[in-house]
Amino acid sequence: MAKLSGLSVSTVSRVINNKPHVSEAKRQRVQEAMDALGYSPLQAARQMRGSGSGNVAVVVPTITNNFFAHLVDSIERTCSKYAYRTLIIQTYGERAGEEEALNLLRMQHADGAILCAIENQWELIRKFTQYGRLVACNEYNEDHEISMICGRQYEGFQKATEYLLGKGHQRIAYCTGAKALVLQPKGLNIDSDRYRGFIETLSKAGKSADPDQMFTRIHTMEDGKRVMKKILNLSLQERPDAVIAGSDEVAAGMVIEGLANGIRIPEDIAILGVDDQPLASCIQIPLTTIRQPIAQEGEYAAKEMIRQLRDGAEDTIRKELDLELVIRQSA
Amino acid sequence: MAKLSGLSVSTVSRVINNKPHVSEAKRQRVQEAMDALGYSPLQAARQMRGSGSGNVAVVVPTITNNFFAHLVDSIERTCSKYAYRTLIIQTYGERAGEEEALNLLRMQHADGAILCAIENQWELIRKFTQYGRLVACNEYNEDHEISMICGRQYEGFQKATEYLLGKGHQRIAYCTGAKALVLQPKGLNIDSDRYRGFIETLSKAGKSADPDQMFTRIHTMEDGKRVMKKILNLSLQERPDAVIAGSDEVAAGMVIEGLANGIRIPEDIAILGVDDQPLASCIQIPLTTIRQPIAQEGEYAAKEMIRQLRDGAEDTIRKELDLELVIRQSA
Repeated sequence: MAKLSGLSVSTVSRVINNKPHVSEAKRQRVQEAMDALGYSPLQAARQMRGSGSGNVAVVVPTITNNFFAHLVDSIERTCSKYAYRTLIIQTYGERAGEEEALNLLRMQHADGAILCAIENQWELIRKFTQYGRLVACNEYNEDHEISMICGRQYEGFQKATEYLLGKGHQRIAYCTGAKALVLQPKGLNIDSDRYRGFIETLSKAGKSADPDQMFTRIHTMEDGKRVMKKILNLSLQERPDAVIAGSDEVAAGMVIEGLANGIRIPEDIAILGVDDQPLASCIQIPLTTIRQPIAQEGEYAAKEMIRQLRDGAEDTIRKELDLELVIRQSA
Repeated sequence: MAKLSGLSVSTVSRVINNKPHVSEAKRQRVQEAMDALGYSPLQAARQMRGSGSGNVAVVVPTITNNFFAHLVDSIERTCSKYAYRTLIIQTYGERAGEEEALNLLRMQHADGAILCAIENQWELIRKFTQYGRLVACNEYNEDHEISMICGRQYEGFQKATEYLLGKGHQRIAYCTGAKALVLQPKGLNIDSDRYRGFIETLSKAGKSADPDQMFTRIHTMEDGKRVMKKILNLSLQERPDAVIAGSDEVAAGMVIEGLANGIRIPEDIAILGVDDQPLASCIQIPLTTIRQPIAQEGEYAAKEMIRQLRDGAEDTIRKELDLELVIRQSA
């Protein structure tokens, strides 16, 4: 192809690998040489991939939460450019499910795994690094032995809490998918960082969170409805006047249950989502929400996996992306 | 276990395999024997599974459409009871994507594949039956060489069209994800059966469909918004007064775009969804929709796959499930 296009081998290689710093004219000449030789970029990518299964496992809690479906979508679109097939595995939040997924590496069904959920202790997960590459995406933990792509959760939740306080809310309830509220030093755990961003911001404003208004293991729309029912059972004095719902699904459930019971949103109770999935903008009261950079997170995680699998990179990276507060009607 | 529980081997086997016709008392005695012997049902299921990868591939167009996420969810929950791991593969509606997924069988990464999308001609797909078992779920075609679990699409669309006609609608537009409107004999193709249910019902009422109001390759919420924009560009005389949207995602996009342009739904234009995914009941105008029996379809498809993989069944089945019209506000 270099001969036919009259370009250097390294330029041809840059084009095939979708690398930057090549002029459009040169790309065009490489493309013409490819066409003349009947050589497709995907074939080239397959050759670059070398041996192995060509499969990358993507491990998520559940794809029925549209946030994870879109995260996987972004990962898959990037992997496929490099001729890697994506196998999606759900853990349902179970340690055994995650271990099953990691076993795909041991059984050589996948060359690497992108973890969008971390259920087990690092001591167990580390054992699987001998069988394939691991990259964490969205979730993160204390270790630096694998690459991590994550959002600045502390700052995102800080911003959201400041916004609610600025609107004059006095009693802010808090929902999380976590099994318990655990505080660790900053930067070690997604749930801890979110919680810390929330309570430290309250604390700076001279307020504290009401332990009775902290709800754990809250994941789905149905969970959100249940929490709203609990809140509506409280007296008006005890009721929170705002909720950080932990996810858009949960927020949607709370909005629906609230409206069904004559609650005005945001006037009686403001509800703040997390994720900014498509649902957020199309429910009855469009959600104010903390947007996670889903598309970029997925793309970066996939590219990092390719860098390790195909280019044999041995170093690890930690990339942090900003969360954004999207203001609509619910808060 | 039979000795310890004082029950017959066949009763113990029925309990382990989750088969019916065993009293709760006997189940309890088997469970106690299992506990005493430190024998878990999952271990038992793993043994029953025998050799092979233990993986079942589930092939879907995309999981960002929540309908498929829930269908996979149902399949996975059933497979896991029998100790089969579920690998989810997206085709994005591409033939190459489906072939890639089927290649998992050839490469022994999966023992069988449940096809919730059929992109290629049967001649190609059939080649893969030498490498593993295939079951079609939701989608179907003319062949009887693999088992198929599907909805009665013709009758569902007939019911929906009759409902719209009964409400006095005169000009009903039609959206489909199919690449073209193709009519085949009944029972051979999901898109054809839906389309036939629609136009035959119109025809019986002395009406016909307007070719300019038939939209193909319509999949997403964004697609739905685009279709609504096109409709709003028509003069009031030309505009349809109802739309069968092809999916809830598409219907949601049409509702949002319509409301944003001051259209009253259903007074100006009625919009009818398909699927009844969670979104349907929580958007601004809750959707009247054709409910597909997602949970049952997934469960039956998974059980059929287990019957073939684990029990070695060689016969094929075709199971048809009813679709139901769920009436809310949008139509």
